Amino acid sequence: MLHFEEALMLMHWDLRTGAPKRGVPLRAEAIGTLSDEIFRMKTSKQMEEYLDRLSDPAVSSEIDPVTSGTVRELRREYEMNRAIPADRKKAFVMLTSQAESVWEEAKETSNFALFKPYLERIVDMQLEFIDYWGYQENPYDTLLDHYEPGITVKQLDEIFGGLREETVKLLQDIVASDARPNPAPLLQDFEIWKQRELSEHLLKHIGYDFTAGRLDTTVHPFMQTINRYDARVTTMYVKNDLRSSVFSTIHEGGHALYEQGISPELIGTPLCTGTSMGVHESQSRFYENMIGRSMEFWETQYPLLVERFPNLKSMSLEEYYGAINEVQPSLIRIDADEVTYNLHIMIRYEIEKALINRELKVADLPEVWREKMRDYLGVEPPNDALGVLQDVHWSGGDFGYFPSYALGNIYGAQIREALAKELPDYMEQVRKGNLHEVKAWLNDKVHRHGKLLGPREILRSVTGQDIDSAALVRYLNDKYRPLYRI
Amino acid sequence: MLHFEEALMLMHWDLRTGAPKRGVPLRAEAIGTLSDEIFRMKTSKQMEEYLDRLSDPAVSSEIDPVTSGTVRELRREYEMNRAIPADRKKAFVMLTSQAESVWEEAKETSNFALFKPYLERIVDMQLEFIDYWGYQENPYDTLLDHYEPGITVKQLDEIFGGLREETVKLLQDIVASDARPNPAPLLQDFEIWKQRELSEHLLKHIGYDFTAGRLDTTVHPFMQTINRYDARVTTMYVKNDLRSSVFSTIHEGGHALYEQGISPELIGTPLCTGTSMGVHESQSRFYENMIGRSMEFWETQYPLLVERFPNLKSMSLEEYYGAINEVQPSLIRIDADEVTYNLHIMIRYEIEKALINRELKVADLPEVWREKMRDYLGVEPPNDALGVLQDVHWSGGDFGYFPSYALGNIYGAQIREALAKELPDYMEQVRKGNLHEVKAWLNDKVHRHGKLLGPREILRSVTGQDIDSAALVRYLNDKYRPLYRI
Repeated sequence: MLHFEEALMLMHWDLRTGAPKRGVPLRAEAIGTLSDEIFRMKTSKQMEEYLDRLSDPAVSSEIDPVTSGTVRELRREYEMNRAIPADRKKAFVMLTSQAESVWEEAKETSNFALFKPYLERIVDMQLEFIDYWGYQENPYDTLLDHYEPGITVKQLDEIFGGLREETVKLLQDIVASDARPNPAPLLQDFEIWKQRELSEHLLKHIGYDFTAGRLDTTVHPFMQTINRYDARVTTMYVKNDLRSSVFSTIHEGGHALYEQGISPELIGTPLCTGTSMGVHESQSRFYENMIGRSMEFWETQYPLLVERFPNLKSMSLEEYYGAINEVQPSLIRIDADEVTYNLHIMIRYEIEKALINRELKVADLPEVWREKMRDYLGVEPPNDALGVLQDVHWSGGDFGYFPSYALGNIYGAQIREALAKELPDYMEQVRKGNLHEVKAWLNDKVHRHGKLLGPREILRSVTGQDIDSAALVRYLNDKYRPLYRI
Repeated sequence: MLHFEEALMLMHWDLRTGAPKRGVPLRAEAIGTLSDEIFRMKTSKQMEEYLDRLSDPAVSSEIDPVTSGTVRELRREYEMNRAIPADRKKAFVMLTSQAESVWEEAKETSNFALFKPYLERIVDMQLEFIDYWGYQENPYDTLLDHYEPGITVKQLDEIFGGLREETVKLLQDIVASDARPNPAPLLQDFEIWKQRELSEHLLKHIGYDFTAGRLDTTVHPFMQTINRYDARVTTMYVKNDLRSSVFSTIHEGGHALYEQGISPELIGTPLCTGTSMGVHESQSRFYENMIGRSMEFWETQYPLLVERFPNLKSMSLEEYYGAINEVQPSLIRIDADEVTYNLHIMIRYEIEKALINRELKVADLPEVWREKMRDYLGVEPPNDALGVLQDVHWSGGDFGYFPSYALGNIYGAQIREALAKELPDYMEQVRKGNLHEVKAWLNDKVHRHGKLLGPREILRSVTGQDIDSAALVRYLNDKYRPLYRI
């Protein structure tokens, strides 16, 4: 089954890294066949018997943690998949694949009305599926659980509540500040082949193993694991914006370090991957922002950058540091800075929660979106393409996914404080250009466990705490108040 | 089943175009699983029932040619696969996978003794398998039939006999000639990124559709079909030898034009690929040699080449034409020119034939190899790495494959004469830089049929003849006698 998944993952990676356009429809058919086969295996009578046999108390007390983790994970998938009648599952797959192309057109023409009936049917089907799956407190919990096992609306409301308040306060101070970084030098021309060499260098610098991965070009950067020794990074080169490739490379590199750090004893089991979307995002965000946008990181790297791109000569390290940390309330989530990013997520979280609790109609989304943008970020999209239509997620039925991004930032900051406690000189090491100890620590504390430990178990074992946004608030204030001379 | 094969083909392509080294063992396992699954489907009870039902005379008289071709092809594979007991098949797979790595080491250290016991067991197993498969006249016919359906030792002896005699005669005259082309200007430094752009340009020029394929870098160039709209070319860039990428690109491009020209009505059947190794090779060789090494082709292309690489300025078109058509008896098949290439193949053919007929012992191979090299080519390998150990084929058990290469040259020349009869001005078109008509003609006469017609049917329908080396002999004499002023 995992071998079929390896084939499938490669087919997906390939589609996004240069597979020829005219081959896509046939590829989609092949992907459909393999996915069906995997689904059939995951929900087979044989799987049920295997799970039942291994869950028998007499047996389960005897088996090792890896096997029992495997059983837990396979049962989770078995139950999630078996709950939905096959014809409804198929209807959903067909609906979302149509919806994705309708969304593309709606976004291009900024026409929410076009997408609306599809989104309504998607929400209806989500509600139908939640009926099959069941829920305890809030129906939205069931969806959250698919991406971040164990997390609930109740917890998120509290966590996001505090974070929102503190973030808005900081953001208002930043907006009111006279300090304005100048990113213009980063918007000159930078040759693509040189950017590619730079991305390779940066990946090596953070400890990425090129004998167990590769770097390719794509439109929306992602990291794809093919197998335990093959975690592939992709990035995007923009000729007149150096930030694009630099930070998407480090971000995806952070994801890859996680996958490259999983204990080889988990090979051949479904535990051989990151434990949740949120923990995965904590690793990519930690590397992208807390390492990759730190002054310490660039103390060794900026001189090398200037050597590679002499058109940066007139920019000092301090100016560069300011420019890569510019805070600017803006319309588009994926372009957002560290401070405003979580506000974008909260807007999506609140809308999803309301939709799934039938407190909001799809028809009202554009207006609610504008309102919340005004409230949280003080900007308002001039059209729906730059507003409610900007993200692909809803067209694919991925409700419950967005909070993982913000949880990643929160986990990242908590893990960072634990790191600082255990390795007090880690930023000193980074300043000297040594990133090995940071990686070794994360390998040991987070990466090696794969899915053997759940996200909360990892967090608790590393930090001794449950989820708490206080560390992120401290980090943001400590970094941005001096930078903006507040 | 074809969808599984698409996944498998992509996994193979990926392994040879930059898949990370450390991921290879796990990838090999995944490939094993998918191959087993495909083998299981091809030899299943269900397949047997399907074939029997469709072969029933009452049914088979009613079905369309595509379905009956599909049945024919699936039955061929079914019978070939079912004939071998599963445990013997497995033993063979294990033996050859070991043998391939032993061969690598033997080649590196030029130690035939190391490889000898493996090759002996491979030959023994080939003989065992031939017993399962059966044969009519000569046991080697059965192996030939796997690559070139219908061809026999009797025919090959006759075809190769005439070709050898004429080739040796021509070669002796060339070696004795005073004319000596000078390839030195092609051995200067040529930047890789410029060579890559050149390869892209050349593929477009011959009519390769980049929206249904892509170009990548590899060590041993190949073309891989992923699906009907995804035929991928690979090439190799050598910094100080421009010929490597230019001619492997055109060669693999010729293979790809074949696959890109197959009628879409064959999609979803096993007929949607080239009809045999020999006919495939006829297309790649036709483009590489008869088009790509012609004066006409370079009349428009050489000025563009000089523009791209100003270090060629001192070389005239005539000098360039001589240099890319240099004839030189040499030790290594894959580096051989058009004239000597077939002699390399004949040596392998004669050795395989003798081994399979138990007229030659594996132990005697190195000596027989040296003897034949002396006789046919007038050169003798100083060691076995440059002699009997040079090719990978035998370590993989691919006996019967080599003759396809020479048959490709023969078919190519026959098809070329038919083309010249039907489109008398085709070289005039090439001279003007128009390769569309040549491609359209090949699409119509050869490509579109896929495997719906067998190799002999295609040859007969295009040329009105059976296999005949006379056309190739005429082509070689017409081209090389003036070039070497004989």
